Amino acid sequence: MAEIKTGILGATAYTGLELVKILAKHPHVSISFISSRSFTGKRFSEVFGEATGICDETLISTEEAAGKDVDCVFSCLPHALSAELCLSFIEKDIRVIDLSADFRIQDAKAYKKWYEHDHPKPELLKEAVFGLPEIYREQIKNAKILANPGCYPTSILLPLIPLLKTAGVAITSIIADSKSGVSGAGRTLKLSSHFVEANENMVPYSIGRSHRHLSEIDQELSKAAGKKVEITFSPHLSPLNRGILSTIYLSINRKAGECCTIVKDFYKDEPFIRIRAKEDLPKVSFVANTNYCDIAFAGGEEGQPVIAVSAIDNLIKGASGQAVQNFNIMFGIDETEGLE
Amino acid sequence: MAEIKTGILGATAYTGLELVKILAKHPHVSISFISSRSFTGKRFSEVFGEATGICDETLISTEEAAGKDVDCVFSCLPHALSAELCLSFIEKDIRVIDLSADFRIQDAKAYKKWYEHDHPKPELLKEAVFGLPEIYREQIKNAKILANPGCYPTSILLPLIPLLKTAGVAITSIIADSKSGVSGAGRTLKLSSHFVEANENMVPYSIGRSHRHLSEIDQELSKAAGKKVEITFSPHLSPLNRGILSTIYLSINRKAGECCTIVKDFYKDEPFIRIRAKEDLPKVSFVANTNYCDIAFAGGEEGQPVIAVSAIDNLIKGASGQAVQNFNIMFGIDETEGLE
Amino acid sequence: MAEIKTGILGATAYTGLELVKILAKHPHVSISFISSRSFTGKRFSEVFGEATGICDETLISTEEAAGKDVDCVFSCLPHALSAELCLSFIEKDIRVIDLSADFRIQDAKAYKKWYEHDHPKPELLKEAVFGLPEIYREQIKNAKILANPGCYPTSILLPLIPLLKTAGVAITSIIADSKSGVSGAGRTLKLSSHFVEANENMVPYSIGRSHRHLSEIDQELSKAAGKKVEITFSPHLSPLNRGILSTIYLSINRKAGECCTIVKDFYKDEPFIRIRAKEDLPKVSFVANTNYCDIAFAGGEEGQPVIAVSAIDNLIKGASGQAVQNFNIMFGIDETEGLE
Amino acid sequence: MAEIKTGILGATAYTGLELVKILAKHPHVSISFISSRSFTGKRFSEVFGEATGICDETLISTEEAAGKDVDCVFSCLPHALSAELCLSFIEKDIRVIDLSADFRIQDAKAYKKWYEHDHPKPELLKEAVFGLPEIYREQIKNAKILANPGCYPTSILLPLIPLLKTAGVAITSIIADSKSGVSGAGRTLKLSSHFVEANENMVPYSIGRSHRHLSEIDQELSKAAGKKVEITFSPHLSPLNRGILSTIYLSINRKAGECCTIVKDFYKDEPFIRIRAKEDLPKVSFVANTNYCDIAFAGGEEGQPVIAVSAIDNLIKGASGQAVQNFNIMFGIDETEGLE
Repeated sequence: MAEIKTGILGATAYTGLELVKILAKHPHVSISFISSRSFTGKRFSEVFGEATGICDETLISTEEAAGKDVDCVFSCLPHALSAELCLSFIEKDIRVIDLSADFRIQDAKAYKKWYEHDHPKPELLKEAVFGLPEIYREQIKNAKILANPGCYPTSILLPLIPLLKTAGVAITSIIADSKSGVSGAGRTLKLSSHFVEANENMVPYSIGRSHRHLSEIDQELSKAAGKKVEITFSPHLSPLNRGILSTIYLSINRKAGECCTIVKDFYKDEPFIRIRAKEDLPKVSFVANTNYCDIAFAGGEEGQPVIAVSAIDNLIKGASGQAVQNFNIMFGIDETEGLE
Repeated sequence: MAEIKTGILGATAYTGLELVKILAKHPHVSISFISSRSFTGKRFSEVFGEATGICDETLISTEEAAGKDVDCVFSCLPHALSAELCLSFIEKDIRVIDLSADFRIQDAKAYKKWYEHDHPKPELLKEAVFGLPEIYREQIKNAKILANPGCYPTSILLPLIPLLKTAGVAITSIIADSKSGVSGAGRTLKLSSHFVEANENMVPYSIGRSHRHLSEIDQELSKAAGKKVEITFSPHLSPLNRGILSTIYLSINRKAGECCTIVKDFYKDEPFIRIRAKEDLPKVSFVANTNYCDIAFAGGEEGQPVIAVSAIDNLIKGASGQAVQNFNIMFGIDETEGLE
Repeated sequence: MAEIKTGILGATAYTGLELVKILAKHPHVSISFISSRSFTGKRFSEVFGEATGICDETLISTEEAAGKDVDCVFSCLPHALSAELCLSFIEKDIRVIDLSADFRIQDAKAYKKWYEHDHPKPELLKEAVFGLPEIYREQIKNAKILANPGCYPTSILLPLIPLLKTAGVAITSIIADSKSGVSGAGRTLKLSSHFVEANENMVPYSIGRSHRHLSEIDQELSKAAGKKVEITFSPHLSPLNRGILSTIYLSINRKAGECCTIVKDFYKDEPFIRIRAKEDLPKVSFVANTNYCDIAFAGGEEGQPVIAVSAIDNLIKGASGQAVQNFNIMFGIDETEGLE
Repeated sequence: MAEIKTGILGATAYTGLELVKILAKHPHVSISFISSRSFTGKRFSEVFGEATGICDETLISTEEAAGKDVDCVFSCLPHALSAELCLSFIEKDIRVIDLSADFRIQDAKAYKKWYEHDHPKPELLKEAVFGLPEIYREQIKNAKILANPGCYPTSILLPLIPLLKTAGVAITSIIADSKSGVSGAGRTLKLSSHFVEANENMVPYSIGRSHRHLSEIDQELSKAAGKKVEITFSPHLSPLNRGILSTIYLSINRKAGECCTIVKDFYKDEPFIRIRAKEDLPKVSFVANTNYCDIAFAGGEEGQPVIAVSAIDNLIKGASGQAVQNFNIMFGIDETEGLE
């Protein structure tokens, strides 16, 4: 198979590092360029010392990147900027995998509400495919614009969508209590990510109905259910580098065991979903540094909520690993290539 | 004021260390004895090097302790054993503050169900006072057997009891998602407390309706509500030494702001309760190494649950600090003595 | 005893928080003002949520602070700025305890070499007293300008000075390998203090002869030895919030046991020095949140170096605790007041 | 290439998990058996949940393993036991890679001194090859018994051996101050590995001349130098899961830059050695989860010691990665297979 030429926009955050590490050892990929706004002219391995000998490419500017001809562009840029800079590639019919939120929300009004600015090209929103491979594999194959899902949404959607799609299952309330490692907050300097502030701490933030990821969570759950779904979502910054554990409380007309059976059957051929027994609940260490999403169901005794527990690595299945999984599907490569 | 003579049973776990550190600097207390089953004959500061120069007492055996005459005994022994060994003191009319679960459950059948053995002296259960000072201060003053609450229960009961006691407030569902530091699992060696297993991890356990602390949580919430209350409770082992954060989801006929007002008013004279704004949610670092319980209310938008958030130090307000707070009340000392 | 009126300059770094926590419960102190450049007008407890109910003072500007009349000023400002802003107080004969490096180096040329700017008032350098209470207690009593030692220097000087002062003891080489928690790098945002960068990491920096603290370490060791001493010093950023462990290798004409005896005798009446056996080496957990410096001696077999190990809490004995210890000495208060 | 059949003895410690993860994805390897004394009959993925879907083999007993016919056996058993159980394979001419210390010490008396029991088969010691590929690659090719080096020794030997082998370089004193993550202490339960004891701590142990790894460090340095070398070695338990940083102080007749040049040249074709500039010192995060050893040289100003800094992942280059690197050499496979 000929090598597929790729470019990476904005590669100097944690998702960029992870993406480069995966692509650098991917047998069917060559990296044509890596761009950075802050570190133009430096080598990638000067920004991330761990990449020495793995990726010593010199980072080019966004402007220079825009003129490059490749088969696929990954964007790790922040939202708003990402859509802007992806446009030139989209116009040249270069396939784009956007790890930002810019193409995840299909409704431009909802995008504006949650991200507080107008979408630069709202007509493209309906072309974009939401890149959850286990749900949208067929559409992903031909996607020109791939909207790679957020980390929290991935951990919440994967256990719930099979239930919502099952006839006769009724869920009347969903509360997701998520715990994330600090890399989820990015490499940008802020006090809440300072070691002394985050270490030996547990910090709830944007709880209830205020975190931006609600836009894609609600959208995808509603699509699966065929009706409007709005969940309660409480993220917590936890003192670990990577990983998300979501504990999700469901008012549902099924027992935990039945939920487990439904979801296990739904994902029976999936390489990156592992359903666990309730005596063997998911935990972050099981999935760290992997593209797995581990899922289990417990609770549901005597009228109590059923509890779905899921775990992912926020930088892999919650970002760059899933992006490469989508890439593999888009380019007809074995879906697990580079991810095991 | 004359010094009050105290003894400590089973002082070589983390609650014991914390208790000794508080009592050693308490101006009205002398420590008459410290006992240990595993370290009899060693000095306390040999077991805990940090106590060198603070408490160098030689640890005596349980048998030797039983003959000692003191004003008050603190027991940090594990459940089942604790009640057994407290009996000789109770019989001599020595006041006992039991940090184990042995006197917390007023119904001997419920005790047996959750702790899987018969209570050694069920007739004492009704004499014991549940030591939540903010709720039972008057009864604590004269308590002969003080049942010091569990750490998770303290973090869940304090934000909820004022609501349940308020006329007109109706709560139809309670889900408590709690995150605890590893000291809550004790100093006993087990794989889940091994550094490599707990670090960089987030581990749900006993979720739903299976953790023993449910017995005292349900009991106390039911007493406050005047009717049977059963909650969903999901503890999570988190990679920090100390602290509990509880995120509690309430189906309630009040807004978050109203809950805040009710609880703030209820605790307006309490030295160790701090009510925070929803923009300034509790977090573990705010309460670590203190006897505070921080509480806030958020959520409740558009039919969504109200979210109570509480934070305590599991070893202080969740154990030894609260024990000393109870001790101060029992012996007529300023309630904050030794705790600031 | 009348309350001593104090003011704090630049209180919104970690040393400031620690200092306020100690002074707020000190029985002989009132805090007249707290200043901040970045948070003027905010309450101290808005900057540090843990201080709610403990210190809710409104932060004033440096300019407003300069006009205040107090008995003693603590400065937690960064070097260069600190000396500048302390001058107005010094001129009014207000005693100053400076936690920055500005008055530690008695030679203005050495100050300029290490701190890369001219000292604003070099003639004051000889008036300043180096605030290591165990060494300079008599001079501290009457100090008008108290130069509070650095954290690394405290951990290195305390085990070595007694040896260097002992007749007949010859040390021909000193290598100090120090490991510090991240709070030692301050609250200022920088990539190396980002949680994801510091966690699960161990980072050597400024090793050999390049860290600024060498200036005061060499100065004080040379004074003790009566001749020029220059050490090798390698600090390491370690993934913990607080604490310094220094492992110090000595080419010395004494065995470890003899070193231990000398140092133990030298510090026999010191409340905050604990000498440990070589089977019970100092570690950070022994001293965290205390004003202790723990010291032991090991090694020295068959011509090998003797190894001094010391541990302190960098924010307490390495900064604010030692500042209050000095304050107590300066104002004739029991030296341990507020520190136990 | 035909698959090489391998077996693993004692695979349920951290090195075993790491080894299985590497071998499971190695393109030229099949795992014929995995044995365990404690978990016989369980599946590997029941012991390590992260291995679900990666290795679900049932663990067999040591007795059953002894009868198996394979091409190569890896032993992750503890010392003493390891040599015992490897013997049956050695007798059948099956090549053995022993990750324990049992074949590292070529002198049976030294083995007894440091490991406190007689070696079960001292005549085999001279047949064993010390598996540091960068030094003994030729001997490794034909090794029948491969003694995989210890983690600390790997981090100390790699930067020093090239210097000691260089004519004219004289080193008169070596002090290695090493900081290790907790996985280096194994998965066995002990108080020092309890999360609450290791977290927020820094713990020196076996400092000076008492750690067992000195036996292989001294042996290999002496061989390289052609004369007896004895170093000072101080390990420190540090609060991270994996990684070793060694800071090594050398009295040497060369400048840091010259050391760097010598070592860089010596390792110029090595795939797993990275020499860094002194402005870009090794740190644990650079090598975590890789088989790299990063090395730099600094210091050496004005008669001060030169400082070698090295970093490895203790479980990979310090154990299982190096074992697979040796395996690749022994079986004529590309040395980096499975390790990138």
